Amino acid sequence: MSLAAGQFEAFSEALNRHQDDLCRDLAALGGAGDAFEPDPWRSDLGVGETRQLIGGAALERAAVNRSDVAGDALPGAATEHRPELHGAAFRATGLSVVVHPRNPHAPAAHLNVRLITAGARWWFGGGFDLTPCYGYVEDCVDWHRTARQCCGVLGDADTFYGSFKRACDEYFHLPHRREARGIGGIFFDDLALDGDFPRCQDFALGVAAGFARAYLPILGRRIGSDYGEAERAFQLHRRGRYVEFNLVHDRGTRFGLQSGGRIESILASLPPEVRWGGGDRSEEERLLRDFLAPRDWLAQEVRSGGAAP
Amino acid sequence: MSLAAGQFEAFSEALNRHQDDLCRDLAALGGAGDAFEPDPWRSDLGVGETRQLIGGAALERAAVNRSDVAGDALPGAATEHRPELHGAAFRATGLSVVVHPRNPHAPAAHLNVRLITAGARWWFGGGFDLTPCYGYVEDCVDWHRTARQCCGVLGDADTFYGSFKRACDEYFHLPHRREARGIGGIFFDDLALDGDFPRCQDFALGVAAGFARAYLPILGRRIGSDYGEAERAFQLHRRGRYVEFNLVHDRGTRFGLQSGGRIESILASLPPEVRWGGGDRSEEERLLRDFLAPRDWLAQEVRSGGAAP
Repeated sequence: MSLAAGQFEAFSEALNRHQDDLCRDLAALGGAGDAFEPDPWRSDLGVGETRQLIGGAALERAAVNRSDVAGDALPGAATEHRPELHGAAFRATGLSVVVHPRNPHAPAAHLNVRLITAGARWWFGGGFDLTPCYGYVEDCVDWHRTARQCCGVLGDADTFYGSFKRACDEYFHLPHRREARGIGGIFFDDLALDGDFPRCQDFALGVAAGFARAYLPILGRRIGSDYGEAERAFQLHRRGRYVEFNLVHDRGTRFGLQSGGRIESILASLPPEVRWGGGDRSEEERLLRDFLAPRDWLAQEVRSGGAAP
Repeated sequence: MSLAAGQFEAFSEALNRHQDDLCRDLAALGGAGDAFEPDPWRSDLGVGETRQLIGGAALERAAVNRSDVAGDALPGAATEHRPELHGAAFRATGLSVVVHPRNPHAPAAHLNVRLITAGARWWFGGGFDLTPCYGYVEDCVDWHRTARQCCGVLGDADTFYGSFKRACDEYFHLPHRREARGIGGIFFDDLALDGDFPRCQDFALGVAAGFARAYLPILGRRIGSDYGEAERAFQLHRRGRYVEFNLVHDRGTRFGLQSGGRIESILASLPPEVRWGGGDRSEEERLLRDFLAPRDWLAQEVRSGGAAP
């Protein structure tokens, strides 16, 4: 079923408001000195606005990017499961967010929400996931609780959450390390619910809102934590895994690089400072064992203030 | 033509000696405190020894790795141009070197030499290339002069050097940045010279020796250069390009990661500390314009001590 007139534009407008709100709330964490730099762009493909905060007091690097693009032929990466749309004209609008806080106790986070329409079809995709280098059960439980809440609008929350969480764990995985990138969240694609656009749109915008609702309080309680050189070194080491995932495995990044996309936007996901070689082995074993092995976070008992499960 | 008895082993032994010599000479640059840590390994595929120097006074990270592997079926990456050998049993022996100096004025460098035998065939591959973040004409000319010298053993030096230099420029290129990784050198594969093993072996070992002969003096005159935070920041920024090349484009790295190779050896090529976001634009334009655009370095006039062409 095709989109009705104005539906695409209304969703695109709603993403603009989420971009504004997120930039405002994320910048506020660092006090008056922190601000996102807007970098609007226009190309053969469409328009967009990259907004980056680099070297902030709270956020070492953050990107909150919008893009609205159209093309004559849907790229291969998007038609893998839709061979009938190969080569169809398409439009896509999306919001993409990556945050790398300065404090090693504050987790990095990622959000993506997108709507694609091609031929007579449309579908939503996206999700959010969290990447701590020091794990806190309370943060993980809150994150996944919000993720589950977001899914309620689609129908049975447990069913959708279970399926989208599994997809997230499967996607954000480094096969060459046999490690998860982080503690997951939700990840969805091809979402059209038998053509129920309003419900899908509510969900997609709810995911953007849920990201802010879950992440901002986590940042609030972690960005002021004490840390020293050992924690900073461990953070830089773990960020290497983030880079490996994005450059080696992430379909969006690889597709963007190979198709001549806009480098500044595509690589805005990379952490600002990274170290390879070294890294505290016992701290890493603890992180991998207690946090990164996929688990049912909603079944965890939260020990208040505890840093270990 | 198959290898004669002992030819493979003799070459493998010679690579061991180059590994020893390179580790000794590279470690010596940093004084008594710097030493390579040997990490011998044995797996289903074969044996090897990774040797790494991390956090040295002169070299921030260096890896001088040997491996001798065998398998029932030659991997796809190695049979692209040899379909008749698809699935053939093979043996491979190689030396792989990557050096990331601490001083931003000292260029990073890479060497690889390998011998592969499969079915009734054998061939050599490898090369060396140099990656400065501050260019010095003198270094580039010396590097390429040695590269050309190495080629003389094969026949007409200019012909082989010209072909191998072009292959190097083509390979060490970041399409998504439209940038060269460095100032090149030589790169060769499928080298068998109509079955003249002794001559090919002389060349391959000469490449390993030439790497040391060209690189050690360059390091010697650069590792003591004065530098400050701006130069360090520019170095960390440029190292981001090195990571992008290795993780997104390098066939060896990608093949290793995808085939479940030994992570510690494969990713020993990555620089120790890296930064994304920022980077001095005018310094970068100068580097790209004056050094990274492929050129005939042997036709350059060397202005003694000059840092710009």
